[in-house]
Amino acid sequence: MIAMNRVEQAIDAAVAGVCAKDCPPKLAEAIRYAVFPGGARIRPRLCLAVAAACGEDTPAVTDAAATAIELLHCASLVHDDLPCFDDAETRRGKPSVHRAFGEPLAVLVGDGLIVLAFETLTRGTVSAPQRLPALLMTVSRSVGAPSGIVAGQAWECEERVDLASYQRAKTGSLFVAAAAAGAAAAGAAPDPWALFGDRLGESYQVADDIRDVAANPDDLGKPVGQDENHGRPNAVLKMGIDGAIGHFKSLLSAAVDAIPPCPGREALRDLIVVESKRFLPKEVLRHAA
Amino acid sequence: MIAMNRVEQAIDAAVAGVCAKDCPPKLAEAIRYAVFPGGARIRPRLCLAVAAACGEDTPAVTDAAATAIELLHCASLVHDDLPCFDDAETRRGKPSVHRAFGEPLAVLVGDGLIVLAFETLTRGTVSAPQRLPALLMTVSRSVGAPSGIVAGQAWECEERVDLASYQRAKTGSLFVAAAAAGAAAAGAAPDPWALFGDRLGESYQVADDIRDVAANPDDLGKPVGQDENHGRPNAVLKMGIDGAIGHFKSLLSAAVDAIPPCPGREALRDLIVVESKRFLPKEVLRHAA
Repeated sequence: MIAMNRVEQAIDAAVAGVCAKDCPPKLAEAIRYAVFPGGARIRPRLCLAVAAACGEDTPAVTDAAATAIELLHCASLVHDDLPCFDDAETRRGKPSVHRAFGEPLAVLVGDGLIVLAFETLTRGTVSAPQRLPALLMTVSRSVGAPSGIVAGQAWECEERVDLASYQRAKTGSLFVAAAAAGAAAAGAAPDPWALFGDRLGESYQVADDIRDVAANPDDLGKPVGQDENHGRPNAVLKMGIDGAIGHFKSLLSAAVDAIPPCPGREALRDLIVVESKRFLPKEVLRHAA
Repeated sequence: MIAMNRVEQAIDAAVAGVCAKDCPPKLAEAIRYAVFPGGARIRPRLCLAVAAACGEDTPAVTDAAATAIELLHCASLVHDDLPCFDDAETRRGKPSVHRAFGEPLAVLVGDGLIVLAFETLTRGTVSAPQRLPALLMTVSRSVGAPSGIVAGQAWECEERVDLASYQRAKTGSLFVAAAAAGAAAAGAAPDPWALFGDRLGESYQVADDIRDVAANPDDLGKPVGQDENHGRPNAVLKMGIDGAIGHFKSLLSAAVDAIPPCPGREALRDLIVVESKRFLPKEVLRHAA
């Protein structure tokens, strides 16, 4: 999961296309603001890593898949931050999109990024159109209803929530899509990668819960303690910090074990182990060492 | 532009897929509420009519294209009605989605419908995947930035607005997409249909302006006078009721003249003339007769 420059360049090319001269200037500025500078770009780098492990042969297709995944992630952050959800003041160390540009543009930025994700997949597969249907199905399933990000967020509007379904839809689904789309971009079957993506997403969700409780807000780039404030489930609140760290480690181990047979299996395994150390806040790594 | 039953059945099948048992119940209910009962379904019926005129040979592909267009239209209505935009109390004669289900679900319904539109295109083209890329490009261009619906709505956030760009993006773009996607679904080139869709969309926009000023709110199913209330451009406010009616007629005539050569050109022309009479409110038709 290196290739940060490659990810940034691919995303930049996609965003440049919509922020053309005909675009309403504030919308163009707000779209760019929502996407750059990014966070750790974990999902698109995961997509690239899986494509490489599967013997990637069409880099433009992989770039499109990775970009689409990240644009959808950015869209979900912009909409989740809206006043009717988290009303978050900051995101990635700066004012959230609706704080910087107002609520109307924040709604439109999210909508525009969703559309751009699908447009990017279409443009990126011109040289390999036979890979487009599998990529589209993989990506749309992970974002929409009944079990993608939109559904995950909608579980917050229900009185009775199945915690596993909620977290799987809200966080896990895009990890599943990142892994499966990486495989599909390389011409491999996407479905065998679902379990790996699911386990990795679950471990990331637990790490996110730990960060929400234990991170330094300056390192995190957003406020801490949001789960407790919003009455959302959190693994640390449920099983304590040590329990949550143990759970994180076992999920990560299960993820690594679930990597399907592929040409670059060993290299991918090593990469996941190294990269996963960045999931947890520094304070917790010291505590857990 | 008959085929109302066909349109309803196609949309119903697409919505049933996302409102499966795993879907958060309120989200499923709200998605269905946003889509049924529909309005005049002008855009999907236009899509079907153009496909028929082009010698439709894969009805499942046409159904998918028509459904995707209508789902995107519904998504735009739900988001446009939000408190940060029009704060509309009613839509299609019943409370708007955010009034009935709350703002969080209204945001998610719009997001979910956008995703569902692209998923529907993918599922519907399994038997003719070679038609998928053109359909995706046609549809995504009409919805996103720099010149689709999202951009159209974003022009409302700018201080200086080019009226033609604004209306073309906000209303015209989905008419262009409906016509072009109908052609693409039938295996014809979509681009020659853009001018026809654009003119038809422009005439519909003028009719919409007339309805906003002159319709009976009970017939319209939403409040009247919204353009003046929100300081939005309106052809009647600009050129008077008779001027607007004359403008509507000349745009419609230009639309009919712009129908490209195709096997069913005459039938399509007749259909457009008949259907266009439904664009204007009854009061105005009497006035203009």
